[in-house]
Amino acid sequence: MKCVMTRSAVPSTTRVNSVSIRAEVINPEIRKTEDKVVDSVVVSELAKPLTPYCRCWRSGTFPLCDGSHVKHNKATGDNVGPLLLKKPKE
Amino acid sequence: MKCVMTRSAVPSTTRVNSVSIRAEVINPEIRKTEDKVVDSVVVSELAKPLTPYCRCWRSGTFPLCDGSHVKHNKATGDNVGPLLLKKPKE
Repeated sequence: MKCVMTRSAVPSTTRVNSVSIRAEVINPEIRKTEDKVVDSVVVSELAKPLTPYCRCWRSGTFPLCDGSHVKHNKATGDNVGPLLLKKPKE
Repeated sequence: MKCVMTRSAVPSTTRVNSVSIRAEVINPEIRKTEDKVVDSVVVSELAKPLTPYCRCWRSGTFPLCDGSHVKHNKATGDNVGPLLLKKPKE
C-alpha cells in the first residue's frame, strides 16, 4: 500500500494548502454507524485486578484489548498499546 | 489523499498475498522512542468523577484526552472517541 497525493479533483487555489499529511481513519471497522465511538467504564465495577483496554481500534473484543495491536504494530511499524486499568486488592 | 496498491517493489511470488489493506500507523508522533506505548491507571487514584482517556493518538495531553479526536474525525471522516473512566461518588 502506498499513499499518493492526488490533486486532480481538488482546485489547487482553494484546498492544496489545507491538505492533511495524515488523512487516514484510524478506525476502519468498529461501530461505524456511530458518529463517535465513546465507551465508559465504571471503575468500581472492574472485576479483575488488571483490565487492558484497546487503543489500536483493531480488537475483536473492543473496547477491551485482545492483543491485536501486536499484529498492527508488526504490519505497520507502529508502536501502539493498550491502556491498563489497575484495581489493587483491597 | 488517495491510497493505491503498488506492487512494483514487492516480489509478487512472495509478498502480494500478505499485503495489508491498511498499513498506516495510527500513532504518528507520541513517544515514538518506545517499542510499545502502554499506560497504566490505578483506578483508586482517579481524582475526578469522570476522566476521559485518549484513543485517537492525537492528544496533546496523552494518555489523557484533550478533545483532539474532534479535529481528527472532521479531517478524515473517522468516528473515534475517548474511553471515559467513571468513579461514582462514594
